[in-house]
Amino acid sequence: MTEQLRPDGSLRHLLTLEGLPRPVLERLLERAQGFVRPLGAAAAQSQALAGRTVANLFTEPSTRTRVSFELAAKRLGAQVVNLEVQLSSRVKGESMLDTIYTLEALHVDAFVIRDAEVGVPGLVAANVAPHVAVLSAGEAHLAHPTQGLLDALTIQQKKPRLSGLAVAIVGDLRHSRVARSAWHALRTLGVSDVRLVGPPALQPPDEEFPGGTRYTDLAAGLEAADVIMMLRIQKERMAEADLPEARRYFAAWGLTPERLRLARPDAIVMHPQPMNRGIEIASEVADGPQSVIRDQVRNGVAVRMAVLAEVLAAREGA
Amino acid sequence: MTEQLRPDGSLRHLLTLEGLPRPVLERLLERAQGFVRPLGAAAAQSQALAGRTVANLFTEPSTRTRVSFELAAKRLGAQVVNLEVQLSSRVKGESMLDTIYTLEALHVDAFVIRDAEVGVPGLVAANVAPHVAVLSAGEAHLAHPTQGLLDALTIQQKKPRLSGLAVAIVGDLRHSRVARSAWHALRTLGVSDVRLVGPPALQPPDEEFPGGTRYTDLAAGLEAADVIMMLRIQKERMAEADLPEARRYFAAWGLTPERLRLARPDAIVMHPQPMNRGIEIASEVADGPQSVIRDQVRNGVAVRMAVLAEVLAAREGA
Amino acid sequence: MTEQLRPDGSLRHLLTLEGLPRPVLERLLERAQGFVRPLGAAAAQSQALAGRTVANLFTEPSTRTRVSFELAAKRLGAQVVNLEVQLSSRVKGESMLDTIYTLEALHVDAFVIRDAEVGVPGLVAANVAPHVAVLSAGEAHLAHPTQGLLDALTIQQKKPRLSGLAVAIVGDLRHSRVARSAWHALRTLGVSDVRLVGPPALQPPDEEFPGGTRYTDLAAGLEAADVIMMLRIQKERMAEADLPEARRYFAAWGLTPERLRLARPDAIVMHPQPMNRGIEIASEVADGPQSVIRDQVRNGVAVRMAVLAEVLAAREGA
Repeated sequence: MTEQLRPDGSLRHLLTLEGLPRPVLERLLERAQGFVRPLGAAAAQSQALAGRTVANLFTEPSTRTRVSFELAAKRLGAQVVNLEVQLSSRVKGESMLDTIYTLEALHVDAFVIRDAEVGVPGLVAANVAPHVAVLSAGEAHLAHPTQGLLDALTIQQKKPRLSGLAVAIVGDLRHSRVARSAWHALRTLGVSDVRLVGPPALQPPDEEFPGGTRYTDLAAGLEAADVIMMLRIQKERMAEADLPEARRYFAAWGLTPERLRLARPDAIVMHPQPMNRGIEIASEVADGPQSVIRDQVRNGVAVRMAVLAEVLAAREGA
Repeated sequence: MTEQLRPDGSLRHLLTLEGLPRPVLERLLERAQGFVRPLGAAAAQSQALAGRTVANLFTEPSTRTRVSFELAAKRLGAQVVNLEVQLSSRVKGESMLDTIYTLEALHVDAFVIRDAEVGVPGLVAANVAPHVAVLSAGEAHLAHPTQGLLDALTIQQKKPRLSGLAVAIVGDLRHSRVARSAWHALRTLGVSDVRLVGPPALQPPDEEFPGGTRYTDLAAGLEAADVIMMLRIQKERMAEADLPEARRYFAAWGLTPERLRLARPDAIVMHPQPMNRGIEIASEVADGPQSVIRDQVRNGVAVRMAVLAEVLAAREGA
Repeated sequence: MTEQLRPDGSLRHLLTLEGLPRPVLERLLERAQGFVRPLGAAAAQSQALAGRTVANLFTEPSTRTRVSFELAAKRLGAQVVNLEVQLSSRVKGESMLDTIYTLEALHVDAFVIRDAEVGVPGLVAANVAPHVAVLSAGEAHLAHPTQGLLDALTIQQKKPRLSGLAVAIVGDLRHSRVARSAWHALRTLGVSDVRLVGPPALQPPDEEFPGGTRYTDLAAGLEAADVIMMLRIQKERMAEADLPEARRYFAAWGLTPERLRLARPDAIVMHPQPMNRGIEIASEVADGPQSVIRDQVRNGVAVRMAVLAEVLAAREGA
């Protein structure tokens, strides 16, 4: 595992939220909050990263996250290049690293990497020069650390005292990097009641999410929850859970207005997007007054600005 | 139909030129003229839109128009992101809108949308937040408003008094958004003699282009014209017109030097591009002294700057 | 052949290094050296090209070279647009030129063109307006002039006195634009001992590389060399050379540590990338102390900045 922190405690890479100390998390969230602007107001802008170069390397199609990182970098004054490089540690680790070394020699200061395969961001981080930062924008089912941060920030804005909250994460936990990163953020920030709510086939392996409470009954999991985080379900996973049709999955696991009433009246509803409306979530809920889904998106660009600013700030000679 | 104007009469969206009041059109053309620079001179530049973000959403391949909008936005100091999102109101209107809401939450201030399907720009415009603008960059066969504006600007530069002009629009009028937007611009600006020149099968439906004169004889349509706007013909449309081969289409409807002599000696020749040389237009004409085709392109970026500047100017808190 | 120099001796286009006078080459290298920064330091930046527009037209996939040009232009303050236009002089020369004229009318000041076909950059250069520059980013097997410049710069940094050097270019010379551009740079700069080292089937035609010494024996070619430039080998070329498998090609022509010891102890090893490790070069050599491969990449962006700065500097009215 590549060390994510510099000796002085500042963030060098962001590959996972697992093991990140609470003060680092809190500093990033505070910094991100400083970049948040109301919907409709002008975006936060600075020239803090003028002269720096950020390369977006996305191998899974992910327009939203790519654009969020791209705008975060540009709004800090950085130059951004988008690449469609095929990274793959399996077939050709050295060739992948040659691409990285090439970009490094072009004075790329930070790599933002999205990859469906386990290990790619870490492999890159283990091999870049000391002044170069690697940010994961989603790694297989394992980690999506900026998503975890934006989820934590969104909750904190609505529920400033995190420690007493009941947070239900609902759906396909087994395959979800969003769930894993949210879990790490929430635990580090002191949330004790995290509920893992989903059908048995989509529950994570036993050794993961230690201390979380597993629910295979949706109603029980939602009972008096303060926060409901719905996860995206893939078609093939519905079949795994013996609910092969959208209609049947929704009947069993979809968040409807009725089910939402099981949670606290001031509960907030989250979703990492893209949403399958009518499958994991009803449109009335997604667009309803308890939904904070658009806040999540807005917070995402703020979180990415905060992370980029921190990993690129300390560079000597810049 | 979404309202394109704000209560104060300024432009909020640009989806169609239909119904746009003459003063608005004239103001946009005047503003565009201020951004026009001679070919070979440096492009006009400003920082009027510094801190604003423009998203280009193009679902039809259209390098030229996309680049024209991209440069227009960048030369006003805006940040630009290009997306290859599949928009589709048929299959998944809500999912399309979720993409739009996401981009809106990333503080995108204007959407530039090109789509082959009727209704997409309007649907987006009907759903964005009050501070967000939608510009159509081409909607099915219906509208291509910035093309209509650049065509009007190009004519005005060469023939400052529009009202007395005879304008022949030649070719596949039925399927042409270029023809429709030019029509709306020209009528609003007081051009009374607009000639719809093309084979019967490619004439527009009877209820469209009211007041235009239909010609199914090319020579008659060109007679003493001041302006000839050639349209692009698609292969499948040549077959519809019983002229399945390029050679035969050109023989019947191509603009040759001989036919050009039927128009006024100072007539100008226009084409929206890309051109099918040797099919709808002879190269001698396209590259000849009466052609203003490159002026159209140059005017295009000026028009797009004017439109972006107007729709994004009035924002509060920016 | 389009003239690459303006009457005052400054560079207007860069299509090939062939025939470029030594003072021009030396000026470009000196200018490039001014843009070189150590790996890990901040990239050189200026606003010398603020308000100018550079269009990257790449029809072969070439992420590295495209990004290198893109960053070079952005770091000089220029606006950059990337296009995926299909250029082709064979099928539709006029249509290709229409695309160029369109971009020119959008105030594009320089075209960077990569094409697998002979003649495309020259055809464009012969047709653009006087103020517009064309830079080849790789033309078929013929020319890759910025690669030749970066190779010369890299050698000069390590071996300031070029004239007495022995330079071995090893591998598939026949199909290599890298070899041709390096050849022209080195000859113009006074390198007399250039060795063309490769199997008979991959030697260039007899009339090319006049004055170079051909070696079909690798050991003889490497003997006491100061510089070893390895070329990339394509799979189909290994078959042409009767060495169809990577293992066999490497055994016969791969640069191993043992073979490297045949050269001078202070010899440098170069490769244009992407490398086929274990085919034309051993990883120990590619990553070893004599390798200057990453210097080449870093120098590439400096060379492209120098060339862009020179071709775009002299414009009137800018």
